[in-house]
Order: sequence, then C-alpha cells, then structure tokens
Amino acid sequence: MTTPSPGKPRADALIDGERLITRLRTLARIGARADGGVNRQALTPEDAAARKLVVGWAQEAGLAAETDPIGNLYLRHAPAGAENAEPIVSGSHLDSQPAGGWLDGAYGVIAALEAVQSLKENRAALSRPVEAVAWTNEEGSRFIPGVMGSSFYVDRLSISEIEDKLDPDGVRLGDALAELLAATPDLPVREQPRPIAGLVEAHIEQGPILEAERLTIGVVEGVQGMRWMEITVRGRTDHAGTTPLRQRRDAMLAATSMVQALADALDDPDDIIRFTVGRFIARPGAPNTVADEVTFTIDLRHPDEHVLERSTETIGRVVAEKAGDCDFDIALQEALKPVRFDERIVETVASATSDLGLPARRMVSGAGHDAAVLAQRYPCGMAFVPCHKGISHHPSENADEADLIAGAAVLAETLRRLASD
Amino acid sequence: MTTPSPGKPRADALIDGERLITRLRTLARIGARADGGVNRQALTPEDAAARKLVVGWAQEAGLAAETDPIGNLYLRHAPAGAENAEPIVSGSHLDSQPAGGWLDGAYGVIAALEAVQSLKENRAALSRPVEAVAWTNEEGSRFIPGVMGSSFYVDRLSISEIEDKLDPDGVRLGDALAELLAATPDLPVREQPRPIAGLVEAHIEQGPILEAERLTIGVVEGVQGMRWMEITVRGRTDHAGTTPLRQRRDAMLAATSMVQALADALDDPDDIIRFTVGRFIARPGAPNTVADEVTFTIDLRHPDEHVLERSTETIGRVVAEKAGDCDFDIALQEALKPVRFDERIVETVASATSDLGLPARRMVSGAGHDAAVLAQRYPCGMAFVPCHKGISHHPSENADEADLIAGAAVLAETLRRLASD
Repeated sequence: MTTPSPGKPRADALIDGERLITRLRTLARIGARADGGVNRQALTPEDAAARKLVVGWAQEAGLAAETDPIGNLYLRHAPAGAENAEPIVSGSHLDSQPAGGWLDGAYGVIAALEAVQSLKENRAALSRPVEAVAWTNEEGSRFIPGVMGSSFYVDRLSISEIEDKLDPDGVRLGDALAELLAATPDLPVREQPRPIAGLVEAHIEQGPILEAERLTIGVVEGVQGMRWMEITVRGRTDHAGTTPLRQRRDAMLAATSMVQALADALDDPDDIIRFTVGRFIARPGAPNTVADEVTFTIDLRHPDEHVLERSTETIGRVVAEKAGDCDFDIALQEALKPVRFDERIVETVASATSDLGLPARRMVSGAGHDAAVLAQRYPCGMAFVPCHKGISHHPSENADEADLIAGAAVLAETLRRLASD
Repeated sequence: MTTPSPGKPRADALIDGERLITRLRTLARIGARADGGVNRQALTPEDAAARKLVVGWAQEAGLAAETDPIGNLYLRHAPAGAENAEPIVSGSHLDSQPAGGWLDGAYGVIAALEAVQSLKENRAALSRPVEAVAWTNEEGSRFIPGVMGSSFYVDRLSISEIEDKLDPDGVRLGDALAELLAATPDLPVREQPRPIAGLVEAHIEQGPILEAERLTIGVVEGVQGMRWMEITVRGRTDHAGTTPLRQRRDAMLAATSMVQALADALDDPDDIIRFTVGRFIARPGAPNTVADEVTFTIDLRHPDEHVLERSTETIGRVVAEKAGDCDFDIALQEALKPVRFDERIVETVASATSDLGLPARRMVSGAGHDAAVLAQRYPCGMAFVPCHKGISHHPSENADEADLIAGAAVLAETLRRLASD
C-alpha cells in the first residue's frame, strides 16, 4: 500500500489549489451580474450551463458523471475493487440567489470535485468510492421549497408533489426541470438514491465569526432549525380616490401592520432569533388601487426547536390580531429541526484540520444546507471557510483564495480518511 | 333652422341606447378577464385592438378619425360651414386597471361616440364641430404618470421626457407607443393639439353617493386634488440565517414601518383624506435574503390644497423618522391641484339634465380624470352616472343600463347646446 502518511499532510500536496481557483472563477462567469455577483437561479439556462461545465471537468478527469430524476449531479471515482461499497460523498449546489455571490454553493461543489479528482490522481488507497455531488435547487429563491435535490435524496419529497409548482413568472417546475435534464442528454440517470456511508459539505461560513477570530476552518457540529412560512392576506380592491378609508379592506395596510407587529413580538434581546420577511408581493399592484391580496414570506431560525415552536405560535396569534377585516392564510412551507451532525464525521473533519496545522473552531451553522437535510438519513458533517465580513447572498460575497484552498485540502483529507475505513 | 325644442327633449330621441350598450359590451371583450373584469392596460395589444374597434365604428358612422403623436384618438363631426370653429369635445379613455371593470373610461368614450354620431344622424344644427376623444393612458397603472394623453394635450408633458420610462417588465414607453400607433397606420396624425371651445366628460361615479341617493346624474363641479409619490428605501442584502438582526439594514422592515406610521399620521377623523399604498415592490425578493431595496407608491387625495400640502410635509417627516439605518428617496411623480370646472359648462350639464327630467345633484369627484387635466387650459365639465356599490377599479364594477343610456342622452344634449352658441 502507498497510503500517504496520515500524520502531517501538506495542503498543497493534497489538491491543486490553482485549478480550484481557476474553476471557481470560470464557473462565476455563468450568470455573472454587472455588479460582480451571480444570478444563477435553479433550473434556468444558467443552471444548465453550469452543470455542463462541471460535468465536462469531471469527465476530463476520468470521473463517471451521472444525474437523477431531480437533476442532482454525481461525479464519481470508484477505485478498483471498491465499486460496490457505499460511497463517501461531498457536495453542495450550483444554483444561486438572484443577487447572489460567486461562492455560496459553488465552492462546495468545486472543492468536492477537486478533492475527488485529487484522490484519483494521487492514487489514494480507498476502500470506498468517493463522489462529488451538486444538489438541485438549494436556494429556493425561484421555486419553493429549497434544498429540493437533497430532500428528494432522503425521500422527503417526490417529484409528483412539486412538479406543478410555479415560479414568480408562472413557469412550471416540471417543465423547467425537463429542460435542465435535456441539456445533458448523455448522462446516465440514477432512478433511485443510493445509501451513503458518509457526507461532508464544504461551504463559506456566511457569517462573521471565523474572520473575526482569524481562523481558517469551522468544524460544524450542527445547523440551527428553520421554518419557512407564507402568509396570504386577502382584502378587496377599491378605487384609491373615491373609497373612504373606513370602508376599505386594505390588504396592504393589514400586511404591513403584521410585519411590524411580528418584528416587535419576535424581538430577541440576545439577538439569536433570525426573523426575515424577504418577499412581499402586493396585487394588483397599481398605485391608484387598494390592494386586495398580499403574500409575504417568513424565514425563521433558531438553534432551539422549542423557541421555533413558541415563535410559530406567536406568528399565528399576531397575524390573526392584525388581519382586521381581511382574511388570511398561514402556510408552513418548510420546517427543518435543528441538526446535530454525526460525531465520527465531525471528529474526522477536526482531526484532518488539526493534522494540516490549520487554526479552527467548532461552531453551529446559521444557514441551512443540503448536509442538514441529508443528515436526516446519513452520517454528515460540514467544514466552513471564512468569508469577507460575513457577507453572503450578495454580489460582494468573497473569500481569501488561501482559505478556499485550505478548505479543499481539509475536504480531500477528510474524504480520504472516511473512505479508507 | 330646424333646431329641436330645447324645452323637454326625450332621452330616447337623442341617442340610440341599444347601440350604446351593445358597443360597451363588445368593447368589454377586449382584455376580458375570466372573473368578468377587464385588463386592458395602456399601450398593450389590447389597447390597440380597442382603438381599432372604436375607429371602425366611427368611420362607419361617417366621422373623421385622427390620432396624434401620443396616441389620443379624435372622432369628429364637422357640420358644413362650421369646420373652422373650435370644437366641443367629449371623451375619456380606453385603458383599464390590470384588474379593472368594463365601464371606467370605456363608458366616457362610447357615450361620447354615441352623442357625436347621434348629433350627426339627427342633423342637429351646430355652429361648431363635435368630437369624441379617447385620451391615452389615463390609469397610469402600467406606465407612470397617468392622464398622459390629456397632459400632453395641455402641454404639461412632452413625449421626449417620458419615452424612456419603463413598465414593470422593463418595456420602454416609446417602443410600446410606436407599436400602438403602428396598429392604425392609416389614421392622419394631428401633430399639434388644437384649441377646444368646451369639453364634457361622462363617467361612472366610482363612489357610492348617487346610488345611495337614487339619483341618475351627478353634475360635477370639480375634482379633489391628488399627489402621487414614490418612496424608495435602500438597505443591504444579507443572509437571513446568519446575520444578526441588530447588524442588518433591512429595507423591508423600514418600509413596512413607514407605511404603518404614515397611515397613523394621516388618519382623518372625518375620513376625507384618501391615503393609499397600492404598489410595494421588494428586491431581491427571495424568502431567505434580507431585502436591500423597497419601492412603494403613495396616492394622496383631498379637496383642499392646503391639506395636501400639509400631508406631504407629514410624509417627508415620517419617512425620515422611520428610515433608521436605511437610505431613502421621495419622488413626487404627479401633483394635481383641486379643480373647479367652468361655470358655463357645469350649468349647461345641469340644465340639460333638468330638461330631460332626470334626478340629479351637484358633487365633487373623488377620482382624477382627463377632464381635470384639460381644465387647466380649456372650459371643462363632467357628468356622472351611478355605479353599483360605488365599486370601480375592480372586475365587479357595474351600472344599470338605464343610467348609462340616460347619461349618454345628457351628454348629447349638453354637446348640442354647447355647439350651438
């Protein structure tokens, strides 16, 4: 056996850092915005182009590329004799927010490809296959819900229950998915998800902690819980010039008062609750017509499930109080409980990081990730790298190249250790 | 001279009521919504189709049809010998709200066409031409500002200053206007507005008064003043899961608190102030991203200019108070002072109504109208007919056919009297 020493590996021997950065910058051109950000929403032509690019790199490297009915991508290295073992998997997503950055999701896919390709090139002695994965529609900014590909993988949603969903322009999800799959017609399609022996997702932190503490790696122990809700408020349209205010059923005034009262009611002196209304659509949307329907979303997060439950009750009460003469619905669209990652995976990330001599800390993720969904069924973990000022979901999202390279090296070493058991 | 007796004309001798109703119902099919309403916004293919239909009716009746650079339509009857006198004009608009009704605007155009055509058919002895007019883009629901065609006519706006405006889908006004004009390529184009001797606009009341008092005609003495503003609030996008609320600059929370505080500050115990936020657009609009920009509109109306001025100051103060860490702009997009109509025109509407034996009252219009803009330069007046429950700008907008016919008869008789001076 020619296993490299597990004692003190060097990052630059484990992966090709220049290739990693070049690929990230090439990928960032697909859906590039004039302001330096990326708009590559799920199931768009840009998403399809990103998939083709990544598949091309993987095939050039001799990896086997496959897809599945929801468009997840699998880029696989199966060493001789290990073909039938359950694989060690790493990946993230290629879709972005409408005004997103170049690293959220993309980094986890390209770092995983770099790790898998490097393990193949370095002829690492593995007893399991290793796979880089790109999960479909993590963001959920175009089609709700997000973490769609990973939810499909753990059997939390079926295509039949989502294919008739519409994006804000009225495009059907099923049609957009069919177009995405048609863009890579030669890929074999895995009809059923296969068991995973272990999974590690690399990601930028999307928060300010690692940068502030001058650390290179965050060893992620879990993810805070999240609930997504959509509130619909229905009133009556009326002419803005003639209808006295006391006679109106104004959905705009009811909805804005709900948002304000919710912000007050969920105010947290410790600033741990994350309460966000990111989408607010008023119809018919004419300046001189009273709005008869408003739909707004709530994104609610906290590390403690009890706080999420109590806050959800508060939301129901406050919305009812502020509805006035309007009707309302509250639809719970997604609920992710706080996640604790697999102890063996977390320890392996920690020891690989420590053996590479990189400064690190343990932490809880503020954002949801595909790994948090996959953890419902498989042993999972994550590794964070710092990003500038904690900014993410924004065109100015950025990170130091040295940190991105270090993170990919940690990933390669972690996958090697997990796949050598 | 064969002038009919001015004493006691009969409505059914003055116009063809069946033709009026048939035309209104035919026109309502263009842009018809499944819910019974009409979506025929300005400068759309539906608007163009409505123009072609009305031009066809006018030409069949032997009226001369012309347009102008902003797409206003003129349907003219000039009796022999009266060709060079300044005309008496009547009209309204063919565009609707996105979820509008079949009568707002359409009634004033078709009633004017019916009046002009009937005066021609009845060989009324006139010393002036009479013209039915359709003014372009009264509603302003697609392209701001509204009352565009009538503002152009009184030289309050030029095409060069509006042609680069975009609709919510990014379509340029100049391009949409060119397409509209291309749909009626054979119409002569009046390059310059011509002086008007007098103007009367017929319209549904769009308020509840005439129906409640069981009256057939509202003799309109004036129009309340109106101001349209657009408020833009700018913050910063952040990731909804990772950014503590105290560190955010959330444009959504700032904007909703402005709307609420404005509704409180402008509360009027007499319920005379009309304060409406009808459009509210939040960007980027993703559920898991803090909004960095919100744009909302204010439609403010009152019969007293001093109240409008004071309320505008209040708006400036409240928006600044509630902006928090966000930046903001307040753009005044349209300001119409309260209008008093021409006394001779008002008296002529009143006497024609009274001589037709129709129950009526004098009133102030709650809604803005093309006639209120044209009154800045020409002697103008209006006649209202009742509508059901005061509902307008809504698919359920409706009126009794008998009232619509009576209103057109009043219009015909008023035009005859004004054109016989």
